[in-house]
This record gives sequence, structure tokens and C-alpha cells, in this order.
Amino acid sequence: MGITLGPNQYGKAESRIVRIYRDSPRHRLRDLSVSTALRGRFADAHITGDQRDVLPTDSQKNTVFAFAKAKGVASIEEFGIVLADHFIDRCPGADGARIEIEEYPWERIEVDGVGHDHAFVRSGHGVRTTVVNIDGAGAARRAHVISGVRDLILLKSTGSEFRGFFVDEYTTLAPTTDRIMATSLVARWRYDHLAVDWDRAHEAIRSTLLNRFATEYSLALQQTLYDMGRAVLQQHPEVAEIRFSAPNRHHFPVDLRPFGFENPGEVFFAADRPYGLIEASVLREDASDAGNAWLGTPGFC
Amino acid sequence: MGITLGPNQYGKAESRIVRIYRDSPRHRLRDLSVSTALRGRFADAHITGDQRDVLPTDSQKNTVFAFAKAKGVASIEEFGIVLADHFIDRCPGADGARIEIEEYPWERIEVDGVGHDHAFVRSGHGVRTTVVNIDGAGAARRAHVISGVRDLILLKSTGSEFRGFFVDEYTTLAPTTDRIMATSLVARWRYDHLAVDWDRAHEAIRSTLLNRFATEYSLALQQTLYDMGRAVLQQHPEVAEIRFSAPNRHHFPVDLRPFGFENPGEVFFAADRPYGLIEASVLREDASDAGNAWLGTPGFC
Amino acid sequence: MGITLGPNQYGKAESRIVRIYRDSPRHRLRDLSVSTALRGRFADAHITGDQRDVLPTDSQKNTVFAFAKAKGVASIEEFGIVLADHFIDRCPGADGARIEIEEYPWERIEVDGVGHDHAFVRSGHGVRTTVVNIDGAGAARRAHVISGVRDLILLKSTGSEFRGFFVDEYTTLAPTTDRIMATSLVARWRYDHLAVDWDRAHEAIRSTLLNRFATEYSLALQQTLYDMGRAVLQQHPEVAEIRFSAPNRHHFPVDLRPFGFENPGEVFFAADRPYGLIEASVLREDASDAGNAWLGTPGFC
Amino acid sequence: MGITLGPNQYGKAESRIVRIYRDSPRHRLRDLSVSTALRGRFADAHITGDQRDVLPTDSQKNTVFAFAKAKGVASIEEFGIVLADHFIDRCPGADGARIEIEEYPWERIEVDGVGHDHAFVRSGHGVRTTVVNIDGAGAARRAHVISGVRDLILLKSTGSEFRGFFVDEYTTLAPTTDRIMATSLVARWRYDHLAVDWDRAHEAIRSTLLNRFATEYSLALQQTLYDMGRAVLQQHPEVAEIRFSAPNRHHFPVDLRPFGFENPGEVFFAADRPYGLIEASVLREDASDAGNAWLGTPGFC
Repeated sequence: MGITLGPNQYGKAESRIVRIYRDSPRHRLRDLSVSTALRGRFADAHITGDQRDVLPTDSQKNTVFAFAKAKGVASIEEFGIVLADHFIDRCPGADGARIEIEEYPWERIEVDGVGHDHAFVRSGHGVRTTVVNIDGAGAARRAHVISGVRDLILLKSTGSEFRGFFVDEYTTLAPTTDRIMATSLVARWRYDHLAVDWDRAHEAIRSTLLNRFATEYSLALQQTLYDMGRAVLQQHPEVAEIRFSAPNRHHFPVDLRPFGFENPGEVFFAADRPYGLIEASVLREDASDAGNAWLGTPGFC
Repeated sequence: MGITLGPNQYGKAESRIVRIYRDSPRHRLRDLSVSTALRGRFADAHITGDQRDVLPTDSQKNTVFAFAKAKGVASIEEFGIVLADHFIDRCPGADGARIEIEEYPWERIEVDGVGHDHAFVRSGHGVRTTVVNIDGAGAARRAHVISGVRDLILLKSTGSEFRGFFVDEYTTLAPTTDRIMATSLVARWRYDHLAVDWDRAHEAIRSTLLNRFATEYSLALQQTLYDMGRAVLQQHPEVAEIRFSAPNRHHFPVDLRPFGFENPGEVFFAADRPYGLIEASVLREDASDAGNAWLGTPGFC
Repeated sequence: MGITLGPNQYGKAESRIVRIYRDSPRHRLRDLSVSTALRGRFADAHITGDQRDVLPTDSQKNTVFAFAKAKGVASIEEFGIVLADHFIDRCPGADGARIEIEEYPWERIEVDGVGHDHAFVRSGHGVRTTVVNIDGAGAARRAHVISGVRDLILLKSTGSEFRGFFVDEYTTLAPTTDRIMATSLVARWRYDHLAVDWDRAHEAIRSTLLNRFATEYSLALQQTLYDMGRAVLQQHPEVAEIRFSAPNRHHFPVDLRPFGFENPGEVFFAADRPYGLIEASVLREDASDAGNAWLGTPGFC
Repeated sequence: MGITLGPNQYGKAESRIVRIYRDSPRHRLRDLSVSTALRGRFADAHITGDQRDVLPTDSQKNTVFAFAKAKGVASIEEFGIVLADHFIDRCPGADGARIEIEEYPWERIEVDGVGHDHAFVRSGHGVRTTVVNIDGAGAARRAHVISGVRDLILLKSTGSEFRGFFVDEYTTLAPTTDRIMATSLVARWRYDHLAVDWDRAHEAIRSTLLNRFATEYSLALQQTLYDMGRAVLQQHPEVAEIRFSAPNRHHFPVDLRPFGFENPGEVFFAADRPYGLIEASVLREDASDAGNAWLGTPGFC
């Protein structure tokens, strides 16, 4: 017949777990969404329906909760590595595992200027993400960690232009030397190795991204993204490459002349759809091989 | 026939407007969703289709954008009052107007420890809301302002119990003296009058809510809401009443005994649905009459 | 101090339940979201934290699942009535109950032109809704049933105009004698009594709404809604009143003249926000008293 | 420094367009979301900010609307091919284009048993999708078309089992020989060539998928997906490969024994999260080379 099973993976998506550390009255918490996926020798499960090498997704979920207790969640990256290693070792059919974790930020509620011991308010400022892909056994095992942020909503009220573009017969856009630039940023960066202080690195890279967005004059969203990516690679040697998906959230100046007003960059309509969508990546030329790092993650894999 | 038109209103919902103040290099911004609605003598528009007394919703939208320039947005409450007064005065069929505004919070991006002049990041910490209802003409005009927050996500990792409840034949819930309590709070409070410093009052009331949530030991979510509401009325004489809609976002401790672990309040499954839903209001007994204040706003109107 | 508890209710929202009837190989199913809420003498639960009269929301959820087995789901209206009566009788603090149920439609998958016995595909065509409000004990008990549809997305590609409206200084909209009219309809109608064949009545009323939308030339969305409501009251004597919330989903004809094309009603941009929002109700003048029927339901209560 | 631009693309996402055909009183409509993206020689746009080879996303949007008039929308696949070819020819920097289109289904409203000429109701039954990727110039131009469905929500109330799986120390799941199987299917299939009757092929393939889901006894969701994919390849020679992403929407039988009832597959709790997620593909071994067909599309690319 010439018909065959192609690439496949399976797992449990979006286990919502809150891990509380109560070792002192000053509680700490990790609020996570964990998705696990296994790949490997699962042809029988698909073709004959024989499930003997399949670790149920329910068991994967149980493992996540049990490991949150037994191993703790030092960081989402480390937790992902521990889970991926375990699943490859334990599930008979698994050659590889992909663990995707999102972490939702919380701040302590301030009472009389001091953060409370055990009362928290959800913060904005985006969601922290990681994707861990591990493959192989023994000495051939290869691990890749991609971390990032999503829903980091940014806006500059000036310091942004867009002009000098190609004009065809369908172009009605006027060039501008002063506009609002806004995006809901998704950034994912691949670490070159695993010897990383995960929490500290994440905070520092995020800070670099914000800093460049704020201070670099923008000739176009593409140019700003490239600049942000280059700065991350320059300042953070542990990063091998970085990829962006950035919707250009259009803010259109409203024409108020019919009502007798000029509008010198003061009143904007924030549109939902359509939106520009800019995807770009910045690479270190001598970076380690990406291998399966981007497997299953939307982008330019 | 005995069939007649009942209550009705119409308007333009969710005009998304960003107002930039550029009077100095240190820009300020207001990011709003404005919904306008008119009510009054619109029977002909419905019954015969005669639209002569109908101000189009497109014109209402234009007015919002023009007023954002002409009048500015000192606060969402004041902007709502200005718009409502205008529509009642200007639209031939309108006896009353309802203006609902949401404001999305932004913070300055920090660069070297200082907030940037014109680069911003969207903050969490909920959405600020207001509903302005104005009715009548001349001396009979009555204005009501209800302000609030929504999506203010709160969590206590201890200091909360739930026990002593009624047990029927369908009750399997175990009483607990230590649980996670979490909610995505919607609060709306009615101001007693219009002589209010809107931004300052909002910030202070929000702070009272957070403070009481954090510091009051909770016997039940109902009890916590009542305590929060009472504190607002005690500390803010300009508030006549306050209403809450608070989903009880359940965090279930995971049974880890099958895997050999105790779970003393450390690992929780955060459930989506179903969820408890607690709605409650706290009133000042000598408060001004609510009139049309709550018209069109979900709750116990 | 003069501070007191105002209106309140509590319950379990959005229990997602699928009830399968397997009494023959030709299975039937009911796919529901059930929200229960109790109101009454719950001041102690709020003020002192004493929960002795509170039936936990977890028990309410258990009851829903148990009753789906024990009583079955003949229709969402009947199921709601059974639940409300039970909660008032059983919960010591409850004087009243509000049960809101949504039902998601499924169709049998067609195999060789015949609907399959136990394989289904989710249908569109909106969600069926009901809200049951019951109050009081014994002879004083009063029950109200409001049923409806939501997310019933309708569009007419012609047969709709909007002109002759009031023009003020902010009006730029051109009158039109041919436009797309589209909405995502929410309709809720109150039954006059409980002696109703619920499934049949719902199907017939829904059909009347669709029929009038399709065949009545529209002078405005207001006029179409009124016409639809009047037809329901004329053709369905069991309906006392009907309320609509109808977003006017704007479809703007695109100006193609810059590109050398006329656009005689052929190419439209479907906008997200802002949108018109028309809310209207049609009443039978001699209808029964609404009492608490609309309590807790957004609209003109 | 060794830092360089990596893969990138840019375009306008989610242009919502409704195309009405009014060549007879019996209108027809196409309701689309169109996303365009260009890739190629855009390094200057990123690195120096020079936009001279960049066709603005606003122009891309204008082109979509103009072409909907000038060329019509015979099918979403053909419309995508026309757009992709145009952009590569017209934009100086473009070597390739990716056009993603979703089509929302509508049915005619039935009036007295007959579908109305110009009144429609949105149907369920999923969204039709296509992704067109074209690269290169002249004789080297290569075009790939992937079509599919998303949000096709399916459920079997019996005829599904899951047992014989691997059991580890974290496995608590009981094997079952009778369960509900439900999914919200995403399927994407790659056509081997462009000589396809697009509308007819789509309808036939969709029908094959539904038929197999309904009639094949299921040993696991993996096995059902493989069977569905194999049937598509066997019955539709124009399809080279097919990929699935299928959340396993868990329906848990509720334990009613505490309340005195057995539950022989009648009452289920429909859970939101976590959910199983099964991704699988089925290939024809002698299929044409996929080239860039899957570029930018989540999955196993």
C-alpha cells in the first residue's frame, strides 16, 4: 500500500499546578501550566492499537504533580529537564520528550509598604515560558532548553517611524516619521548549554529586551526586533539564538478635521484586526547545533 | 393587540481609544475601551422604523474620539460624565445615557532604574472600570457614578478555612482549616455624589480592598468579601455601596499518597470549571437613592 | 455605623455535564453547563462567618450530577425547575434559587446518508439557554422560566437599510439603502407559566425568530428586533415577554476606487470593535408579573 | 561579532473579508480570514532599517481586498495561490510567500422548508483552512497547498476503549472497555499537486474523516487518527500526507455511589484542563517532496 506513520507525539497538555513553599512563614509560590509530550517507538499504538509501550497521559500528569513535591520546582527550566529525563528513562516507547512550561507571575500584596507573607496579586508583564526537548539515551542524550516570554505588551508613544518602503499600485499607506509602535511580544531564546542560572538569566535577558525596546529609535518593527535580538546575543553569551513573533498592534491616528480639530499624535484608535505580524530570528554564527530544540514549537523550525 | 415595546437602549460598544499627552517629553497615556448607550423616546425607531430621533452609533463613536481631544480624559469618571451630559443634550430622543469605560494600566519601562519618558509596558493588577448613568433634563438631571476593578486576581496561600457548613446527603466535601483562597475579583462601588477626586479615590479604595484581603483571616469567601466591603464603607465616606462578584478559583490539594508522599498544603491542582461564584453587596443604610445607577450593569439590580 | 449586607447569592458555576441515554443502541445525549445559585438568609455566613446554613457549592455540584442520573434531563427547563425546588427545600438558609443552564447542540454524524447511532458532531446554530428562578415556600412558591439562545450568528446580504437618522456635528455616516446586516443574537423570552412542552416550544420560537429575520425587510436593527419579538408574542401565547441583546456586527464596504474598481456591495471588511449594541424588549401588556424572573440575568432588570 | 539575521517573514494577519456574489437574487458568500506573509531578501529592513524592498503589510491587505473583487474567490486554495504568486512577482524583496486562509461556514436560513436567497445562519462543523506556500521564480517556482479543518468537534458515546497500556509507579488510571471519546479535531493534509477540484476534494476528505471516526471501533485515539489518515490516503490519491492535532477531551464518569446510584456510562464530567494531546501524521511513501509546504505551520515541521 505504501502508507506509513509519520512523525507523532502524545502527552498531557496544560496541567495547572500551584506549588507552595511553606518552609518559613514567608511563603513562596510557583504557578505553572505544564505540558508533557513523548515521542519514539509508538507505531504499534497507532497501527495495531497495541498500547503496551504507551505511558498514559494520565500517568504523565500524576508524575508532574508528584515531582513537584519530590523534586521541587527550582526553576521551570530545571523542572522541565528533570521531567524529560524521567519520561525517557521510564516509558518503554519513548526516545524523546518535550516539556513545555508556562509560569504566571505573582507579586506580594503590599500592606503598609511591606510585601505580605502569604497574600499575592497576579502581576502583568507577560508570562515566562520554557520548552525543554531531550532525546536519546546514555552518552547520546541531547538536551535543549528554549526559554522566553509571551504576552509582554509594549508601547512607545514616539521614537518610531516607518517610511521609505516599496510603493506598488495597491499602496495607500502614508509614510510617517512619528507613530505609536506597540506589540504583544513573544520571544524565545535557545540556551547554548545547561550550565545556566535559570532565574537570573531569564530576568537579565528580559531586562535587555525591555531596555532596547525603550531606548533604540525605531525605523521599523523589524529593525527594532533585530536590535533587541542582537543586544541579547551580545550581552548574554549563554544564548545561541533568539526568535520573535511580534504582532504590530496598529494604533491609527483619528482624523478629527471634520470636527474642527488637528490631531498631532494625541488620539488613536487601537485596532484589533488585521494586524501586522513580524517574525524574525537572530543567530550566533558559531552557535551549537539546534538539533531537536525547536521541535513542536511554532516558528521557523 | 396588547403588544408593546419594553425597556431598550442602543449605542456603540468598545471603542478602543488611546489618548497620549505630549505636553512635555515625559508622555502620559490613557488606554480606554468606551461604550456608550442612549435610552429614551425611541419607540418609532423600533415600531415604524423611523430613525429621525436616533443619533447613529457611528456618531457616538466619533464624539468619543473628538471629546478625547477637545475635553481630554482627566479621569474615566469625568470623561464619562461629560459624554453622558452631551448625548442627553444633543440627541433628540435621549432621556438618559449610560457610559461604561474600562482603563488598561501601563507602567513606564525602567531603564537604569528610571521610568522611561515614552516607552511603556502593560501592567497586570486588574482593569479599572466605571459606569456613569445620567437621566433627565435641567434641574431634574440625576447622575450616578459606579467605579470598580475587574480581573484583580488574588490568592492567599494560608489564613483561610471553610468548615461548619450544612451537610446534606450530597455533601462529600471535607471541612478544612487551611486552604488556598483565590479569586479573580470584580468589585463595583457607587459613589454617593460627584465631588470626588476620582483618581485618588480609586487608588485608595483599591488599596483598602487589597489590604483587607491580605490581612483578614478568612472563615469563608463570603465573610472576606463582606469584611472588604465594610472596610471600604468605613474608610471612604464617599462610597454609598459596594458589590462583589468573586469566582472561588478552586485549588485542590493533590492526593500524593499513592506515590508515597504526604502533601501538607504544597502541591495544588488549579481547576478551571466548575467554580464557586459568590456575589455580595454591602450598603450604607443612610446612602443616597441608587436610582438608575445600576441600570444595565450585571449584578443584583 | 449603619453598614449592612445587601443582596447576595452564591453557588457553583459552569458544571459541565454530559448525560448519555443508552436505553437503546441509538444513544441520545444532553451536553450541559449548569450554574446553581442560592439566596436567602445568609447574613451570618457573611458577617460572623458562621456557615451552618450554607450548603457548600461542592454539594450543589454533586446534586447536579446525581440528579442527572436520578431524575434525568427531560429538558433543561424541567431539570432547572427540579434542581431549584430541591435546593430551596433542602438548604436551611435558602429562600430562593437561580439555575442557569446552557445546552450545546450536537448532530449525528451521517454515514451513507443515515445518522450514526453513537457518533456525533457539534453543531453551530447557537447555544440554547434557560434561567429558572424560584422563590418562596409552600403555596407562596413562585417559579419563573426564561429560555433563549445565544451566539446565534445571523447575516443578511441585502434587504437592509439605515437612513433618515438624526445628523449632528459629529455625524459622518452616509445613509444607505442596501447594506449587510449581521448580528450574534442573544434572545431571552419569559414563559407565562410552566405548562409548556419545553423542547417543542423552544424549537418553534427559534424558528419564528429566524423566519422573521430572513423575510422582514429591515429599516434598522432596532426595527428588525422589534418585529422578531412581536412575531414571537403573536405566534406563541405561552411567551409573556422577550428581550434581545444584539451586537451590530459591522461589515464595511471597502473603497476599491483607488485600485480601479467599483464595489457594488461585493467586498466587505468585517470589523471586530467597536460594534453597535442594540438592546430591546417586547412585552405583552397583560402578561403575568415578572417577579424575580430576571434576577441575576444581565439586561434591563 | 558573528551575529546574523536568521529566518524571518512578515505580513498582515487576519484580514476579515466577506465576499458577496450577487449575480443572481440567490446570493452566495465567502467569509474569510486571510493572513499573508512574505519572506526573502529582507536583511536590510532588519539590520539597517532600510525599507526599500518592503511591501507594507497595509498594501498586502489592500491587495487582498482588491483581488477579492478583481479575481473573485473561487475557493480559498485558488485565492491563496493567486495572492502568493502576485506577491512574489510584485514585491522586490520577496522570494516566497505564505498565504493562510480560514473560511467560516454559513447555511441559508430555512423558510417554509426552503433556503432563503440572502439570509444566512453561521454553521458549526468546524472551520475550513488552507495554507499556500510558494517559493522561487520562473521555472523554479514551487507551490504547495495544505488544506484542512479545525474545531471540528467530535464525540462517540461508546465504541471506544483504552487498555493494555504501560503501567508505572505513577499510574492510577483504570483500563476501560467503554468510554466517551471526544476531540476538537485539527487536520491538515498536503495535496500532491495543484490539479485539484478544491471545493469538491475538501468536502470529500472531510466526509471520509467523519465516516471513519464514526464507524471504526477505537482502541485508542492514536489508533483512530491513524485509521482516519490511512483512509484519506487510500481514498483520495491527490493527498500526499495528513497531520492531526487532536486534544483528547476527557469525559470522566462521575462516581455516584456515595449518593446511592450506579453510573453505567450515563453521567460524565466534561473536563477543560489538562487534556491529552495527540499529534500524528500519515504519509504516502512515494509522495512528492514536501519542500517548504509546512513552513510556518505548527506541527512536526
